[in-house]
Parts: sequence; structure tokens; C-alpha cells
Amino acid sequence: MTIPEKMRAFVLTGHGDMDKLVYHTDWPVPVAGPGEVLIKVHACGLNNTDVNTRTAWYSKGVSGNTTGGAFDTADDEDATWGGAPITFPRIQGADVSGTVVVGPDHLLGKRVLVETWLRDWSDPLNLEKIGYFGSECDGGYAEYVKIDERHAHPVDSELSDAQLATFATSWITAENMLNRAGVGEGDEVLITGASGGVGSALIQLANRRGATTIAMAGKSKHDAVSKFEPHALLDRAPGNLKQALKGVIGQDTVSVVADVVGGSYWPQLIDVLARGGRYTCAGAIAGPMVEMDLRTFYLRDLTFTGATIVPPGVFADLVGYISRGEVKPALAATYPLEQLHEAQQAFIDKKHTGNIVVTMP
Amino acid sequence: MTIPEKMRAFVLTGHGDMDKLVYHTDWPVPVAGPGEVLIKVHACGLNNTDVNTRTAWYSKGVSGNTTGGAFDTADDEDATWGGAPITFPRIQGADVSGTVVVGPDHLLGKRVLVETWLRDWSDPLNLEKIGYFGSECDGGYAEYVKIDERHAHPVDSELSDAQLATFATSWITAENMLNRAGVGEGDEVLITGASGGVGSALIQLANRRGATTIAMAGKSKHDAVSKFEPHALLDRAPGNLKQALKGVIGQDTVSVVADVVGGSYWPQLIDVLARGGRYTCAGAIAGPMVEMDLRTFYLRDLTFTGATIVPPGVFADLVGYISRGEVKPALAATYPLEQLHEAQQAFIDKKHTGNIVVTMP
Repeated sequence: MTIPEKMRAFVLTGHGDMDKLVYHTDWPVPVAGPGEVLIKVHACGLNNTDVNTRTAWYSKGVSGNTTGGAFDTADDEDATWGGAPITFPRIQGADVSGTVVVGPDHLLGKRVLVETWLRDWSDPLNLEKIGYFGSECDGGYAEYVKIDERHAHPVDSELSDAQLATFATSWITAENMLNRAGVGEGDEVLITGASGGVGSALIQLANRRGATTIAMAGKSKHDAVSKFEPHALLDRAPGNLKQALKGVIGQDTVSVVADVVGGSYWPQLIDVLARGGRYTCAGAIAGPMVEMDLRTFYLRDLTFTGATIVPPGVFADLVGYISRGEVKPALAATYPLEQLHEAQQAFIDKKHTGNIVVTMP
Repeated sequence: MTIPEKMRAFVLTGHGDMDKLVYHTDWPVPVAGPGEVLIKVHACGLNNTDVNTRTAWYSKGVSGNTTGGAFDTADDEDATWGGAPITFPRIQGADVSGTVVVGPDHLLGKRVLVETWLRDWSDPLNLEKIGYFGSECDGGYAEYVKIDERHAHPVDSELSDAQLATFATSWITAENMLNRAGVGEGDEVLITGASGGVGSALIQLANRRGATTIAMAGKSKHDAVSKFEPHALLDRAPGNLKQALKGVIGQDTVSVVADVVGGSYWPQLIDVLARGGRYTCAGAIAGPMVEMDLRTFYLRDLTFTGATIVPPGVFADLVGYISRGEVKPALAATYPLEQLHEAQQAFIDKKHTGNIVVTMP
């Protein structure tokens, strides 16, 4: 196979509005070094990280209760999830499905998914030596991408390229949340943002463990969310959550809340946790600043776990679930790469259910 | 030994001001039933629970950023730590040292400490079947008290009765916090409210585990707190906590925050937690309503643990530490029982360091 020297790519040039995402047709194709593979990208899924990094939402200078548009007051020194500044130009895009076109024999020609957490492989549990595919190195909004060969996981599946590109970030995030909260059989798991990528993954992955799932999403999305088979469905912010729970599961408390929403509704989420309950969080799409009542927290012996960095092994678990057909993708829409602006705007508008993916020309 | 029929006792008659605590000299002496012991109380230590229950601070009707005086808006239906209403009249007082005067042979005449968490002993881990000595049953602000014999722990110590009455609530709370946060060698533990009963216990118990302890307390109390041998001492609310930490331990983060203070300073406590850090909480003396930034929480993979109900075994561990002289009491002052109002006012004024104890006539 001949590798061209130039490729089509969407390049982020700095923090700001959508115009900071610039489409190129003559961007240099990366060259795989020793121990690396070059992957021909077939499809790449969108994530909050793309938007949050662009708008510098992760910066503490931003109080940002909306996604997007907050970059004016942001501090570039503290504008990635990890607190380290991102460098530009940067090709974003973490959820890649593709084929290995340069690499060792056992990977060459293989259909792969890319493990997204970058580690120091000689010190893989060191949380200070970590990065994210498409943030600390170039990602998949391009025709080709290179990566350490240990990140290329062959996958054997009948799913389409676009379907395979729905999994990586959302699903390892969701699986990590369930690990952090120790979810298992007998748990009732209340899931916010259930129409999104992480939310819909949480439903399937918690069901897979034998838990009872209660999904929260806007009424207009209930038909779509019901396809992920939660045990119960609630509106995104019922006026009286205890009452609403009682109506669908016969009790007004849950043992676990898995949240990616936060915002002004947050105190109600915490207040339905039973004594000894667990709250786990991997996002705050409705706003990161929340009001916490320490009495609820300590008097009920609650445990809260933040879930961002995913330990080694979780991605391989997920590839196993996919290969064995234990989970099904939630592909909401596909756009060609050159329409990334439109794709990201649809992603921000949150009218979809599941994942949005760009595909290569 | 002859047991009288009447005794001196301080009785709480309802939620309210100090005048709800009424001294009696002819209160009926309790009668030990099957499986119970009657203890002649020698001394009984004061705790926040006494004040919080009296003022109905645990009620969600109270936004109470001060201790005391908030009962006007409280909802009696939700006015104990457990959410169940307390019944009156009630003799408070949890931290009892005394001598068994009625009971089985192996306990009769023994000097004992009283384990304070009431359990259903046929279902001891059930968090819904639990109460507190001096809250859900009568406690130690009286000459005699009865309790299930499994709560009477013989202690062999050279410490005085008043010194022994400093341990129970504060120390099992502190030990449970350290268990919940998994504190061990190599941890740096930032301790708020270090001049109080729980705070001073946290210092000694975290040191006992080989952790590095940084104690926060008002400057006027540093001499007194230094006797508990923290590795470093900080003011109660340094303007720049990161800088202050750097000055005393050479780094601007800690792995653990053990907090009983909360209040408006709380966001700074969370912000010095290193990636993967743990926050544990057993009180909120500066106010329960705090502002939480979910970004800090989830992007740094933090773990928060509330610590109220103490599992079986912890009290026995503590009695072992006391009997082996591994910990030393922090007796701030003693008052005779009839001066409980003055003792509790001194407790509320928080000018003391360590525990305040009432002794029997």
C-alpha cells in the first residue's frame, strides 16, 4: 500500500469559537516511528472533550455553565482536563476505527480500535504521566494517525466502521464509572444524561452487570433511549425526584448515581442516595459548580468517586464486550470529515441520542 | 452495692436553647434488663452531637452556618443525624467512663468504656438499624446508665476517669475517617479543626499509621495543638493554602484531607488534593453548605467519603490503643455535672483545645 504525503485533516488552531477548527487538504501525513503504527482512519466519533478543549472549559478561569463560548476568560495555562496546556496546531478526535497500514506483521492490515489514554508504558499506573489521544497528541479527524502499537486493539466484529467509532471514549468512561462505584447485581443505578454517549453506555454496561437501571433524559428522547433497555425511564429533571423514583421502581432511593450532568439539579441527585450510597461522576454538561450539603454527605456515609483516567485493562475489557456482541452501538448520525463543524454543532445542540461520528472521504 | 432509686441527671426536654437542658436531682435510676448492664457513670465527655441534636442542626430545614440558635426553622421530623426524630425527654452524653454495678460476673466491678453505636446485634452491619448512645437511648449526663452488655468494654489503664471520657465519639470517628480514606504510610493528611476532639485524635491516629500530618488550627491554639505532635501546623484558613503547604512540607498538594469544618473555606481544601486524592468528612462546624467544582472532582479522580456510622470492631481497636498507651487523651477542662450549661457553652465557644468532660458528684 502506498502512503501519500499529504492528507485531509481538521486542525484546531487555538482556544475559541468553531472557526478555530480549520479544514486542510494538504496536511502532512504522520510518519510512524519505532514501536508505532500508522492507521488509516475510517471513522472517528465526537466527544465532549473536543468541545471542552476548544472552548477551554477545563480552565478554572471559566465558571462556564454552558458548553461552548466561554473561552474569552480562560487561562491557557490550565485549559486541558489534565491541567497542562495543550499545544497547537492539534488534530483532535479520540474514537478511531481504522486499519493498520504501517506496523508489525501481527497488526498490519488489521481492523483496530485505538485505546485512548496515553501512558508511560514503563510506569503505566502513574497518574501524573498521562495524556489523551487527540489532546496531547494528534487524533483521528484526519485520514491517517500514528500511535504506539500497544494502543492498537484488533477487533473482530460485524459492526460498521462508524458503529465501531462510537465506543472508545464514552464506553471506557462509563465502564470506569461503574468500576469506581463498585456497581454489581442488586444495585439500583440512576443515570443522568442517558441519551448521550456515556449515558447510553452506562445503561447497557450496568444492565450487563445485573443492576437495575433508571435512565434520565428529556421526554422527547425516551423512545430512542428505551432502545438501550433501561429498567425505567424518567424525565431529565423531575420536580420531585423521590416521588418519580417511587413511581417507577417502588422505592424513593437508589444505591448509585452515575452522573455526567451536574448543574443546578445536582442536589436532588445526591438526596436520593440511600445510606451508604455511591455517586460517581465523569462530566458536568449542565454546569460544574454545584451546591453540596455536607450533612447529607457525611451523615449518610456516602462515597463520591470522580472518574476520568481509565486504568489499564478497561479498554481491553470493552473490546471483548464488542467482539462478543455483549453491547450494541448507539450511532446517532454520521457526517463526512469536511463537515466537522456541522457535526460538532449537532453534538453541542444535543438533539441526538447516542454518538455522532465523522467518516473519511 | 446498693443502687438508689433516684439520681441526678441533665435531661433534654426538646429542641431549642440551652434552657431545654434541665437539671434534675430525682430522676429515676434506669433498671438493667436481661443482657444489659447498669453502669455507675464517673465522667462523660461532650460532643457536637449534643449541641446539634438540641438545636436540630441535622434538620434539612436549617441552613445553619453556625452551631446553635438555628432551631427556629427546624423540622422535628428530620432532626437527628439519622433522619429519625428523637424522642423527649432524653438524657444525652455519649462518652462514658464508669464502673459496672449490675451485670454478669465477668463485667461486674469492672472499669469500662461504652461503645457508642447502637446496633441490631443479630444484623450488625445493617445501616438502617442503628442508633447512638445518648440520642436514641439515654446516655451519660446522669449518675447511672444502662446499656446492652456487649457495649461495655473493660479498659485497663492508668488514665483518670475524666481522661478516659475523652475518647469514645471523637476517636472512633477519627479512626473511621482514616479507615474510609485508606490512610497509611506515605500519605500526607491535612487535618482541619485540629484543636477539637476529632481533629486532635486524627493527628495522633494518622501519625500512628506512619502518615505525615498537617494540622490546621487558629494561631492561638498552636501551642496546645503541637502537643499532639503533627508534622506541621498551619493557621485555620491561610489566604493561599497551596503556598502555605509548600512552606511546611515542600509540596503544594496532599493525598488526603480529613475535615470536620467545611464552610466557605472548603473549596480551598479540595483544591490542594493531588490527582487521585481522598477527602473524608465527619462534620461541618463552619457550615454544611459548600460550593463544589465538579471539574476538580472528576478530572482529578478524587474520592470523597462521608464518615458517620462506625463499623463493628473499630471501638475495640481503640480500646486496644488506649490500653497499650499508644494514644494520649486531650482533656481540656472538667466541669461537675450540674454545670453542664457552662460546660456546653465553653464547648460551643471553641476556645479550648481537646475535649471537655463533665464529672459526677
